[in-house]
Amino acid sequence: MNFHDLETPCALVDPDVLEGNVRAMSERAGRLGVRLRPHTKTHKCVEVARLQVRGSFGGITVSTLAEAERFADAGFGDITYAVPIAPGRVERAARLEERIERLALLVDHVDAAMAVERHGARRGRALPVFLKVDCGYHRAGVLPDSDEALGLARNLAHSQWIEFRGILTHAGHAYHSRGREEARAIAEQERDVMVAFRDRLASAGVRVSEISVGSTPTMCAAEDLGDVTEMRPGNYAFFDAFQTAIGSCRREEIAFGVLATVIGSYPRRNESVIDAGTLALSRDPGPIHVDPDCGFGIPVVPGTREPLAGARVAGLSQEHGVLRLEPGDGGTVPRVGERIVVLPNHSCLAAALFDRYHVVRGEEVVDVWRPVRGW
Amino acid sequence: MNFHDLETPCALVDPDVLEGNVRAMSERAGRLGVRLRPHTKTHKCVEVARLQVRGSFGGITVSTLAEAERFADAGFGDITYAVPIAPGRVERAARLEERIERLALLVDHVDAAMAVERHGARRGRALPVFLKVDCGYHRAGVLPDSDEALGLARNLAHSQWIEFRGILTHAGHAYHSRGREEARAIAEQERDVMVAFRDRLASAGVRVSEISVGSTPTMCAAEDLGDVTEMRPGNYAFFDAFQTAIGSCRREEIAFGVLATVIGSYPRRNESVIDAGTLALSRDPGPIHVDPDCGFGIPVVPGTREPLAGARVAGLSQEHGVLRLEPGDGGTVPRVGERIVVLPNHSCLAAALFDRYHVVRGEEVVDVWRPVRGW
Repeated sequence: MNFHDLETPCALVDPDVLEGNVRAMSERAGRLGVRLRPHTKTHKCVEVARLQVRGSFGGITVSTLAEAERFADAGFGDITYAVPIAPGRVERAARLEERIERLALLVDHVDAAMAVERHGARRGRALPVFLKVDCGYHRAGVLPDSDEALGLARNLAHSQWIEFRGILTHAGHAYHSRGREEARAIAEQERDVMVAFRDRLASAGVRVSEISVGSTPTMCAAEDLGDVTEMRPGNYAFFDAFQTAIGSCRREEIAFGVLATVIGSYPRRNESVIDAGTLALSRDPGPIHVDPDCGFGIPVVPGTREPLAGARVAGLSQEHGVLRLEPGDGGTVPRVGERIVVLPNHSCLAAALFDRYHVVRGEEVVDVWRPVRGW
Repeated sequence: MNFHDLETPCALVDPDVLEGNVRAMSERAGRLGVRLRPHTKTHKCVEVARLQVRGSFGGITVSTLAEAERFADAGFGDITYAVPIAPGRVERAARLEERIERLALLVDHVDAAMAVERHGARRGRALPVFLKVDCGYHRAGVLPDSDEALGLARNLAHSQWIEFRGILTHAGHAYHSRGREEARAIAEQERDVMVAFRDRLASAGVRVSEISVGSTPTMCAAEDLGDVTEMRPGNYAFFDAFQTAIGSCRREEIAFGVLATVIGSYPRRNESVIDAGTLALSRDPGPIHVDPDCGFGIPVVPGTREPLAGARVAGLSQEHGVLRLEPGDGGTVPRVGERIVVLPNHSCLAAALFDRYHVVRGEEVVDVWRPVRGW
């Protein structure tokens, strides 16, 4: 099938670009001397995860139990569920853990720790747990200098029904950086906070064997991860307009795009309307801290990463995207029936809106991949 | 099943509130003397559409051909596909049109009109078409004072292979209004533009039999629709935080919510984290023109529409929502394991993220409805 025959909107993956991205991150991890445990939340797709772990120890990271279950079914045996476990979800996680080598959980609160412990005691088997640390993002995690952090680490390390795996963080604030230098500084902070916390715990008699860090911006920029043992980037498989804007990748390295058709053309106001709206691109505002006019993705010529001259995705409603041309930028308003590709602001969110990815090499659809959805 | 046993995040529908909403709009349409052709894009769900057309002529509006096909399968025979038709989609639409009473298409460009015409000629059967009019929203539609509008209307009306149904508009700019008075003014503009355009066409010898208008804000506020023949609101079935903020409904009339679990609690910074992120709530910024601090939905006590004291959904990432409490507002930071419901900013976008809706009366899950997804 030629990709021009696909119905729109639809999700396109470039397998060669994807392949280059996963190889590059794998080599980075090797150079930095850490294990790569790729996050799979960006694609939620077995085929991509298999590429990501090629040549590595095979561990992955997930953001939902639905992902964990699907990947377990596909043969992945070492999974970290990298969202703090809800007490009510421990039983489902434990059921899955029984049929694979290891499903590690995240905890940053004593109530969750107690729920994991109670469950372990009931079934007579310890569950693997990471202590989630807040390294500066201030979304989840214990503050590494706090009394709670020390107390909780002690609880985890000394519990009979918890297998304490180590400490884990995510420097999500790296998404606020304006380029690779800033991301590198955050990567250093991420590393330093974790190593210092490891040392603090050691002084208190709590031995930490694993230090897990990672976000695509910090892992693309890091030059020295010190005693970190593992990285967990995910977005790098697809990359997106946001990562390009903050310097994690070049536009040519974006492996995911949304194919759309022009359904309205309004030359009088220099606008076209495409059939990719919020339900195809997501409403992520994008890297507005770097480019306030970034719009909702980068419109490009299909089959290329070449931007449509002067065009931006200026607005989105449910099933409509507004493509606006800046007068004088040399572009012409696309005509009804034309096709364009939008490289979305945030590929994790856009990809999640599709029930399949069309894998396109040149103009040919060479495969169709089915991601997992829901929770 | 008790709704406390549902896994989170999940989508909840209150059938009694829904019932009240659809009855109220049906009565409004009756009072205003127009037919109600409800839009189904908010829920994409046969069960809700059946409630919406109870006691009416049975016509519905859809935003995708996937919706049209699903509703046709369920017995709906009079469907308007209210997004401008892409030339490459005419054939699929025509195939569907052959098996139901009527599938009306939208056209606002001569290239699309010609594609419809060519297809009609080839199969020897005229396709029903509305001319889409821009009444002030400036997203899609012909400008009613333009030469193009007149030329295109003539083409549609005189074509042997097009059954010209009339003119259709959507006053999407009503979402920028700050209350019912402003929405009412836009409803009057929507009506006046369309009636004047009808008259202009009549003077040029083009007879218009149907005038179709509608958005939930304008149709909740309109007091006189004049010669309008049909209204097409959709969101009113579920309503949402946005509609509440601009005065289309009261909070008690919101029929759709997302049940979430607290997975992190950080009293030191007055925040909790819930397991409903962008993939459960969507990233719609909400009614920031009315309330810059609206956040990403209204957090309420489950089973009620009672706001959690002092709390707002201050941030979203893929699988995390940040619940922030304003100090001094009397609230306490929710604890890990607690459940809350978020009434999303935009129910059309949030509902589209779920593969099923749990219909909950009191605490009991009385039904599960499966919406259609994709395009």
